[in-house]
Amino acid sequence: MDIKAYMQTVGQQAKAASRAIARADTNAKNKALTVMAQAILRDQAKLLAANAQDMEAARARGLDSALLDRLELTEKGVAGMAEGLLQIAALPDPVGEITGLNYRPSGIQVGKMRVPLGVIGIIYEARPNVTADAAALCLKSGNASILRGGSEALNSNQAIAACVREGLAAAGLPETAVQVIETADRAAVGELITMREFVDVIVPRGGKGLIERLIAEARIPVIKHLHGVCHVYIDDKGDLEKAIRIADNAKTQRYGTCNTMETLLVAEAVASTVLPKLCRIYLDKGVELRGCPAARAIVAEMNAASEEDWHTEYLAPILSIRVVKDMDQAIEHINTYSSQHTEAIVTEDYSRARRFLREVDSSSVMVNASTRFADGFEYGLGAEIGISTDKIHARGPVGLEGLTSQKFIVLGEGHVRG
Amino acid sequence: MDIKAYMQTVGQQAKAASRAIARADTNAKNKALTVMAQAILRDQAKLLAANAQDMEAARARGLDSALLDRLELTEKGVAGMAEGLLQIAALPDPVGEITGLNYRPSGIQVGKMRVPLGVIGIIYEARPNVTADAAALCLKSGNASILRGGSEALNSNQAIAACVREGLAAAGLPETAVQVIETADRAAVGELITMREFVDVIVPRGGKGLIERLIAEARIPVIKHLHGVCHVYIDDKGDLEKAIRIADNAKTQRYGTCNTMETLLVAEAVASTVLPKLCRIYLDKGVELRGCPAARAIVAEMNAASEEDWHTEYLAPILSIRVVKDMDQAIEHINTYSSQHTEAIVTEDYSRARRFLREVDSSSVMVNASTRFADGFEYGLGAEIGISTDKIHARGPVGLEGLTSQKFIVLGEGHVRG
Repeated sequence: MDIKAYMQTVGQQAKAASRAIARADTNAKNKALTVMAQAILRDQAKLLAANAQDMEAARARGLDSALLDRLELTEKGVAGMAEGLLQIAALPDPVGEITGLNYRPSGIQVGKMRVPLGVIGIIYEARPNVTADAAALCLKSGNASILRGGSEALNSNQAIAACVREGLAAAGLPETAVQVIETADRAAVGELITMREFVDVIVPRGGKGLIERLIAEARIPVIKHLHGVCHVYIDDKGDLEKAIRIADNAKTQRYGTCNTMETLLVAEAVASTVLPKLCRIYLDKGVELRGCPAARAIVAEMNAASEEDWHTEYLAPILSIRVVKDMDQAIEHINTYSSQHTEAIVTEDYSRARRFLREVDSSSVMVNASTRFADGFEYGLGAEIGISTDKIHARGPVGLEGLTSQKFIVLGEGHVRG
Repeated sequence: MDIKAYMQTVGQQAKAASRAIARADTNAKNKALTVMAQAILRDQAKLLAANAQDMEAARARGLDSALLDRLELTEKGVAGMAEGLLQIAALPDPVGEITGLNYRPSGIQVGKMRVPLGVIGIIYEARPNVTADAAALCLKSGNASILRGGSEALNSNQAIAACVREGLAAAGLPETAVQVIETADRAAVGELITMREFVDVIVPRGGKGLIERLIAEARIPVIKHLHGVCHVYIDDKGDLEKAIRIADNAKTQRYGTCNTMETLLVAEAVASTVLPKLCRIYLDKGVELRGCPAARAIVAEMNAASEEDWHTEYLAPILSIRVVKDMDQAIEHINTYSSQHTEAIVTEDYSRARRFLREVDSSSVMVNASTRFADGFEYGLGAEIGISTDKIHARGPVGLEGLTSQKFIVLGEGHVRG
């Protein structure tokens, strides 16, 4: 297979389809999504069989259990995929919204219209449910998409792609509006991220290796999620019951998610009150604690934290803890070590809450709430394609709106510039 | 001079200053801008003397008159710079605006806060007025900036930079919040566009060579303006008087601007009515016409347009003209050849106007108005740092809002995720 020629064809087809998808009306897009959901439910046996093939090959290659977990498709997983498609069909259509149409002194009326980005390339791990999810989000936001899932999920993804194409066809939309790459060859990624003439934006959903590769090699704008080194700061004006509840939840509700707290900062004035209770909870749940000297002086069952720890996204039952002088030092620590994903303060002090909200430069900044809320569903976006830790375009959870942008529209009656 | 070490220092200082600028209140930023304007007026003689040095060196090197034009600073130019600073001081502060703060079923309240991007690197030609303008736009939007102007303007830019620093100091803001690169060495650009740890976004204002270099070499997001191949389509349902007025203005009001029409498309049903009158106007103004065979059959004084012409941004009194069957063919032509900058339709047909607005994928799309309106001042943005032909982040004229993004904020009362 000539990967370059194959990808060029995929790119050309996506670009051509993107025009039809951009102008598709809401009904057509929703019909496509609904038929996709029906096809996925009807083809459940086929999907599970294709997935069983993938699982067998993955086991034979000795892949680790985390990967197998993500790869596996169950009956419940299939139902969840179909349900996800229907949820996206039910979301408002972001395309075409006109805002701020105001008259200017020259007599022209100027406003903005929300429009699709064009062709979106999505690169993700071997998680078959992402195929349906990403296809649906791109379609509903009026974009054509090129989906490149982890090679271990090739059979599963092709089975899902057949359902996606059936939905597009049923709605009279071009089947090439969603293309799932049919080769496991990694060279396809290299082509995808440099086809400037066909692809408008790349959204990676993968590990740091992929992101670093994109930063070095991509010639197309990337909406990316680097990593999640999230902090909770317990202020000395914080309600300590809330503090314990939030710090517990932010770490232990799920260990492996990007919005999980990785470093706890505690004001020194309350450290000896709050840390013993809180650390008891962590230790009872089997969380390894790594602290600064001041924290270790309060709780003995704590290993020493190294400089490396403050930078680390554990994604595991490990927590680093630092006692800080005050909020200023907490903000300084966050601005130094945070990945600018999500940070929270626990405080009852009005002015400090306002300052923390303004001065912490992360994609989500919270007062008296768990970092675990940083999520498209929790924020009411309906669904998310990922969480951006970039500073331009979209920050935080990226939903349908994040897959669009705004162009200017000008309405005149023969107006010319003087 | 060790360029790498120098640029690292500049980058570190900018990053450090960006925090202070991000939290600077509106009064402080406006005071800095006002003092800058006063200093520029007071130092007029110094600025003109520095500029005279630059002009002399440029003439000695035999640089062309277009460059000399852009480089020259006059008394009026200095007054204009100061006036521009005061206008930016008078604009509303975009930073900190909170929108859409709604309660979610979980009980948390989620909204967005507008925030600066951080450190902005601006690369521009030898136009001293851009130094003041770019410094002011970045400052008012809460960003630190690193300005790298054309080397021919080095003395002029350093004189302006002194006024900028005076303004920052007077307002108690770090003088490193605006840094004007002090070397003409082009290696400085290479450093600027790859210092990921210090620079958040690059805004180039320059020719295609610069943009191509950035696409290849930048490791930082770029808000860019590729070029302006702008179209006017005269529909057969268009008011022909408006059509002539708009098509005349779009081409001849100024030849060298990016929003000037470069290709005129005319529906065949009205071509023989509208083209003779319109081409008479162009020819009387000395515009060279290059047409398709159908256009040349109507107006004899027209050269043959080549395929290359449809792609070309002339920035000169040259116009390519094509007769098209209908609006569909016009949109097809635009989607093939346009640089997605600005396109206009002249029509009185409601449905076609709506379709053109939706289906033309350019940063500005107009009905019955001249493409020359595509400009930050005309759109009411107050000022612009440039016009983006990108599809993510900001499209079209980029003002203060385009130099910011939105983060999520979450307000809770001890809420945790269940």
